[in-house]
Amino acid sequence: MADDTRVSDDETPTDAEAACFEAGIKFGSLYHQFAGTPLSLESASSLARAMEESIENQPHCSDVTVEIRTDELDDALAAASAEYTELTGRFLEVEIVVDYEGRTVVTKMAMEDGYPLMRLEAVRNR
Amino acid sequence: MADDTRVSDDETPTDAEAACFEAGIKFGSLYHQFAGTPLSLESASSLARAMEESIENQPHCSDVTVEIRTDELDDALAAASAEYTELTGRFLEVEIVVDYEGRTVVTKMAMEDGYPLMRLEAVRNR
Amino acid sequence: MADDTRVSDDETPTDAEAACFEAGIKFGSLYHQFAGTPLSLESASSLARAMEESIENQPHCSDVTVEIRTDELDDALAAASAEYTELTGRFLEVEIVVDYEGRTVVTKMAMEDGYPLMRLEAVRNR
Amino acid sequence: MADDTRVSDDETPTDAEAACFEAGIKFGSLYHQFAGTPLSLESASSLARAMEESIENQPHCSDVTVEIRTDELDDALAAASAEYTELTGRFLEVEIVVDYEGRTVVTKMAMEDGYPLMRLEAVRNR
Repeated sequence: MADDTRVSDDETPTDAEAACFEAGIKFGSLYHQFAGTPLSLESASSLARAMEESIENQPHCSDVTVEIRTDELDDALAAASAEYTELTGRFLEVEIVVDYEGRTVVTKMAMEDGYPLMRLEAVRNR
Repeated sequence: MADDTRVSDDETPTDAEAACFEAGIKFGSLYHQFAGTPLSLESASSLARAMEESIENQPHCSDVTVEIRTDELDDALAAASAEYTELTGRFLEVEIVVDYEGRTVVTKMAMEDGYPLMRLEAVRNR
Repeated sequence: MADDTRVSDDETPTDAEAACFEAGIKFGSLYHQFAGTPLSLESASSLARAMEESIENQPHCSDVTVEIRTDELDDALAAASAEYTELTGRFLEVEIVVDYEGRTVVTKMAMEDGYPLMRLEAVRNR
Repeated sequence: MADDTRVSDDETPTDAEAACFEAGIKFGSLYHQFAGTPLSLESASSLARAMEESIENQPHCSDVTVEIRTDELDDALAAASAEYTELTGRFLEVEIVVDYEGRTVVTKMAMEDGYPLMRLEAVRNR
């Protein structure tokens, strides 16, 4: 941290970088607010709507789309002979769009190699 | 804990006590799963539905009713000149009904002296 | 709900029932506050301490003991070739003691048939 | 979304933008995992340590520093004549450092005009 160049101009984040930071905040918020929520086939759609609408409240967040992977959920419940489980990344497909100072950032979360991966998809000038 | 009477009969919980324990679990779950969720007048009803339906998944939970106190929310947003805030107990009225081994337990959460108080309302034989 | 006997005396919860309700609140709080937290062998003990100390703040909560099952965690990390995972019930052993109006309630959470089961262990007069 | 230029080269995120996205994820995770946790002067330091160590598990996260603002907490408890409250942004000062593909991103959260503001502080080439 003893970096005397820290306040130099070239460390100042660009608008596009700030837009990406904002997009990351939304993803981390969505995941860690709702992970662990009791989840069944019956309650999946109300949870998805609440996740979308609550995160859309956050600054610069123009669109959130949450799909619960009901096929995966169905399999998990059958394997466990259970009627409900807890929300984790394996049941989620999420797209979040952030608009910040003329930049649009598109981000997605989906499973990759068995892990929920949050990914920066595109950074656009509007 | 060095209590050699621990397994004696009179320490065994009654069905009514177990029903009350179950009801408490639901309340603690509901509050700590969703506290901190971004909340606005627009997203209040989808969040309330998701809270109800997700907690109703839990064992022995027959009914959950969540009302967001929109008047209180409106006041808080106006006072802060904000468009959204975070869910805390001051914005909630909750009733949870648990049925367990022939006992029905009714519990409520509401503000009392500025605190969200979770209260055991009634324990009934069905 | 159309129960005109609702306010009759015999529906009034006993102190022991209220103590069990309080114990349930603590368990639900602990689980749903911390489920989903990033967890590794290195961070397990600081998380366990924080869980204990934060829930002990709640009213009538005299003692909370959280053990992270590091053997189970080690297995899960090895199976996934991962360095961390998320906290779920399979990694937890918890005991919570509540004292309320002269009653002591002992509760435990441990795995049973692959599920984290919260159980009321004993209800004592002090 | 009907944007046929979406996969064009100039929409591909830079390493610095991806690093900022990663930093945002950590902040959103930290805040929404732990907001609502019961908090007192006694439990503040164990919670701060757990927040640091758990979020440091996340990919590319090289350092997390959490300070609980105990003066502010003291004031809040005194004003409410309470022994504990719930963790919200007003009690937090956080710095998170992310290293990603040769970029170092420094981010901070602190109160500004009564709101906890997450801010991108610097983006550096190492």
